Amino acid sequence: MSGDRLARVALSLVGEPGEERLLALVADLGAEVVLDHLRADPALAPRFRELAPERVLADAERTGLRFVTPADDEWPRQLADLAAAPSLQQRGGVPVGLWARGPLRLDELAESVAIVGSRSATTYGADVAADIAAETCRAGRPVVSGGAFGIDQAAHRGAIAGGGPTVTVLACGADRVYPASHRQLIEHVAQTGAVVSETPPGGAPMRIRFLARNRLIAALTTGTVVVEAAIRSGALNTANWAGRLNRFLMGVPGPVTSASSQGVHQLIRSGAATLVSSGADVLEEVGSPGQDLVAEPRGAERRRDRLTHHQLRVLDAVPVVTGAGVESIARTAGLGLRQVRGSLTTLLELGMVREDDDDRWRLAAPAHGPEG
Amino acid sequence: MSGDRLARVALSLVGEPGEERLLALVADLGAEVVLDHLRADPALAPRFRELAPERVLADAERTGLRFVTPADDEWPRQLADLAAAPSLQQRGGVPVGLWARGPLRLDELAESVAIVGSRSATTYGADVAADIAAETCRAGRPVVSGGAFGIDQAAHRGAIAGGGPTVTVLACGADRVYPASHRQLIEHVAQTGAVVSETPPGGAPMRIRFLARNRLIAALTTGTVVVEAAIRSGALNTANWAGRLNRFLMGVPGPVTSASSQGVHQLIRSGAATLVSSGADVLEEVGSPGQDLVAEPRGAERRRDRLTHHQLRVLDAVPVVTGAGVESIARTAGLGLRQVRGSLTTLLELGMVREDDDDRWRLAAPAHGPEG
Repeated sequence: MSGDRLARVALSLVGEPGEERLLALVADLGAEVVLDHLRADPALAPRFRELAPERVLADAERTGLRFVTPADDEWPRQLADLAAAPSLQQRGGVPVGLWARGPLRLDELAESVAIVGSRSATTYGADVAADIAAETCRAGRPVVSGGAFGIDQAAHRGAIAGGGPTVTVLACGADRVYPASHRQLIEHVAQTGAVVSETPPGGAPMRIRFLARNRLIAALTTGTVVVEAAIRSGALNTANWAGRLNRFLMGVPGPVTSASSQGVHQLIRSGAATLVSSGADVLEEVGSPGQDLVAEPRGAERRRDRLTHHQLRVLDAVPVVTGAGVESIARTAGLGLRQVRGSLTTLLELGMVREDDDDRWRLAAPAHGPEG
Repeated sequence: MSGDRLARVALSLVGEPGEERLLALVADLGAEVVLDHLRADPALAPRFRELAPERVLADAERTGLRFVTPADDEWPRQLADLAAAPSLQQRGGVPVGLWARGPLRLDELAESVAIVGSRSATTYGADVAADIAAETCRAGRPVVSGGAFGIDQAAHRGAIAGGGPTVTVLACGADRVYPASHRQLIEHVAQTGAVVSETPPGGAPMRIRFLARNRLIAALTTGTVVVEAAIRSGALNTANWAGRLNRFLMGVPGPVTSASSQGVHQLIRSGAATLVSSGADVLEEVGSPGQDLVAEPRGAERRRDRLTHHQLRVLDAVPVVTGAGVESIARTAGLGLRQVRGSLTTLLELGMVREDDDDRWRLAAPAHGPEG
């Protein structure tokens, strides 16, 4: 086994996820040099004597965990963007390695999409998250989320319904589950996609590890969709990272009366996030130009669309309420009497105008109004 | 009475609202010259012989209608922007005059806000439109709308609830009402604000007049708020005009599952409209810089906000599920044992951590999760 690999396991065991100064040193000097420096510090030496990275790695591999480093083919190269991104809440940097389990290779996440949001999601938010996740997976893009209650859970479930794969990035060790009630969901993800963590095996979920984890969700994916997020939701931390990393940032709106949508509306209003309404919108946003382009939604095709220019002008000159004579309609439309009579006959056949007894014409369906 | 004024009445009677070529000629040559030209056309001469602009004006004034022209102090100068704006669906140009009734002077609309939207509004949309209208009026800005069913009606009613004034711009003559069931509402607007139309007295509502009317709603106001609009809603025509006229264009989002919000979402997604959630957002958008600035909404103040930097670092290092010893917490937090013990005592008093029997510490409220 390479010295770099073992050094990275050791640093993973002593460092905290996203410990920006340590990770910057590793980026500059390499893992082995940094490890030697730390070992030489008398205050730290006792800790390092306790470390047994080879044993930890062997134990992990026995339980189905692998440790992926930048030297591996499987390494998701997009994480390099973390080296240049400004840190947030003292978290940042390229991880020394990722602990992972599951059949999905991490280098297959280059086109993946993160779907995150409030733990206290509404049924509306959960439904939309699941729909978007399913459509994203069907388009061949893995869906990444955090395995939490609410939107994360809905995103994973929707992704599975859409044929997967889906990836859970945990704040605790990848051999553990958090929250505990999501054991079945996370085990399913581990069997079909991947469960990933920067925290070493056995590590507990702590707030700083969630903050570090959020940066990984943003960095692993090509774009982040925030479905519901209250003003101080943790999902906005992931959104912030997506912005720092120049990833696509998208938000799903909701009723302005819903506190769960306030944070998303703020992201859209400020221009940080693009509004998306559907999986198709997401695919258009993250797709290459000219690819995945969404057909502009249109109202049901209306009979108007099949009229000639002259027929339209005549139709638009026919009153809504009280009928008008042909001469008056011709004047309004700016057309000759013959043209108007011809058009009115067609419009009458199409059921779009009606002729009153006294040769006066009006629209056939005033209830729908003349505006639309 | 000036020749210009009478010429404009005559042109109002023979022209259609928003007849772009006629209005461009009036802008270039003046109303009297254009009228003389038209009268000299043998094909049109008979029509002009029937015209009695002086009598129409006198009749109108007897019923409380006035005709406002660019020569009047009351003329809303912002309509001049229509001269330069590209036409839309063959409508455009500065009106030759406006027929109006009601106590509100039209030159008081410079800071007004248009609130428009779907006729088939949801109760959600109607409630939000009314709230925004009320808050806009309370800030001293008149609310302009079209008097239609749905959002228009809600906007007028909300504006009245907010103390008004509100203005209805009609497609039919300002002496008429459309829709007929809004007679009481529109009469109330006429008594407290203004009812305005480019269509001469007695004129019927027709589709091209609605299109011309929409451009006036956009042009009279400093910004347009679209509350709900399906993909082909007439409200999007008003939105389009607001864009052409460089007015503020704002959209209120809704559930992505609601067809009534699809058109608004499209406007926001394309960048044409800014997302607004409230009257405060609208006032911030249309206000002068530094004025009406909305306080960023924040979550309820949390106990975290009152902690010191060290206490926060300790709190963030305390595990969620299984307790950790003080040494482990100190290592994770990167702080000394004494600092950690002091902080833990405070956090315990605040009820934010709990100490298990074996001197191991964990968060007090794991149910809320560590992310938020």
